[in-house]
Amino acid sequence: MEAEQASNEKRIITMKDFLSHISLDCVVFGFHSNQLKVLVLQMKTTSTWALPGGFVYEDESMEVAASRVLKERTGLNEIFLHQFHVFSDPQRSKQNPAVPDMILAGVTFPEKSWFEKRFISVGFYALVEFSQVNPQPDELSDACEWINLENIGILMLDHNEILQKALETLRMQLTFQPIGYNLLPEKFTLSELRKLYETILGKELDRRNFQRKILAYDILTRLEEVRQGVAHKAPALYKFNLVNYKRALDEGLQGRW
Amino acid sequence: MEAEQASNEKRIITMKDFLSHISLDCVVFGFHSNQLKVLVLQMKTTSTWALPGGFVYEDESMEVAASRVLKERTGLNEIFLHQFHVFSDPQRSKQNPAVPDMILAGVTFPEKSWFEKRFISVGFYALVEFSQVNPQPDELSDACEWINLENIGILMLDHNEILQKALETLRMQLTFQPIGYNLLPEKFTLSELRKLYETILGKELDRRNFQRKILAYDILTRLEEVRQGVAHKAPALYKFNLVNYKRALDEGLQGRW
Repeated sequence: MEAEQASNEKRIITMKDFLSHISLDCVVFGFHSNQLKVLVLQMKTTSTWALPGGFVYEDESMEVAASRVLKERTGLNEIFLHQFHVFSDPQRSKQNPAVPDMILAGVTFPEKSWFEKRFISVGFYALVEFSQVNPQPDELSDACEWINLENIGILMLDHNEILQKALETLRMQLTFQPIGYNLLPEKFTLSELRKLYETILGKELDRRNFQRKILAYDILTRLEEVRQGVAHKAPALYKFNLVNYKRALDEGLQGRW
Repeated sequence: MEAEQASNEKRIITMKDFLSHISLDCVVFGFHSNQLKVLVLQMKTTSTWALPGGFVYEDESMEVAASRVLKERTGLNEIFLHQFHVFSDPQRSKQNPAVPDMILAGVTFPEKSWFEKRFISVGFYALVEFSQVNPQPDELSDACEWINLENIGILMLDHNEILQKALETLRMQLTFQPIGYNLLPEKFTLSELRKLYETILGKELDRRNFQRKILAYDILTRLEEVRQGVAHKAPALYKFNLVNYKRALDEGLQGRW
């Protein structure tokens, strides 16, 4: 009963422990059975959606702050986030819906003017198998949901631009680094791998060209097994050759010059 | 005489127009006839060397600030700088020689405590033909010089780490994007192009492998001309096919999936 009363009281969040002018935003792409979604929060009692973002404590690196913010705001833990771009347009906080006043419902910020400063935001992205994580909204949000890329509407501030840049970065990454480990089951067919690429790229790929290119990179091991229970010819199963996969992550798919 | 007197007075630089906690550092690589150098400044009346860096005005994006800082500190103008990483270790300002007090010689900073705050630095890099630019030290520096990569000693703060990360980024870029335009003369031999790659990578490449790979990317046009005045067999000259080169910059050397 006492605990319940306490939780109804307005919580004082003090911003003085955060660095001023600096924020971060996380673009978490979720893949599952040929769908690509983005994790977004609906700000409390508003119709405004936003990427999960937050601020940096005095004693944190950006990477540590990004992991903490993602966990606090969405419940997602131990996600490897990549820095991809710094967003610093001086007008960025004036775009689209700004941070809504209603975000403050239930929370008292004693330093409201702190928010009115200009923020430079460091963008982080990750790609996860979305059926394996369980997002939970924080106290600033009414919802924390996976939304299909094509159904993302207007987001808060410049978050549409941040999302777009993350998507371009992810797509460029496909041209020089391998992808798929932790997203596909351990054993998969070439069609299943191609569909992962098609989903991220948002377009169909030629089956033969894809097969030729991906096999040339030498990151796959063909297994003796075939996919059971498929009509017609049973397709071969593959798994990643993790030594070569790791090397291709470090050196690029083309290998060193 | 009056002007001379004025310049002897201590100049007041006010930091209040800069964003606190945020800085930027520029790694400018210079290539010329098979040498790769880095542009560094020697802090006034000290033996401390540093990358050219600075701060961000309230109304500037990071990109605009980076170009301005590079111009102010080194005289280099209209250099296209790429964001490559944010350096945010909370201890970064305590590494190596910190910003020397002597940097303040001749300049009074009224808000010295402003410098004692923690700074998060955005790294930018560029690669230029160093014979085509003319570096000039600013008033905080005794020298502004191109130093060979292997002769760079201990730099201020975490600048060695920033340099190393820029070099890794540049080398990774070679695996998926073309390079050489604006660094080589309009017409060049395959050996000259290979030497550019060898210089950046810091290692020798197999002549035949390089030739096979670079020609497969379809970014070169073979000319009818040959290099004159060379002993033995005169080598063919090439130029970049700028349409394909530009496309490879956008889509990666492998092209789209």
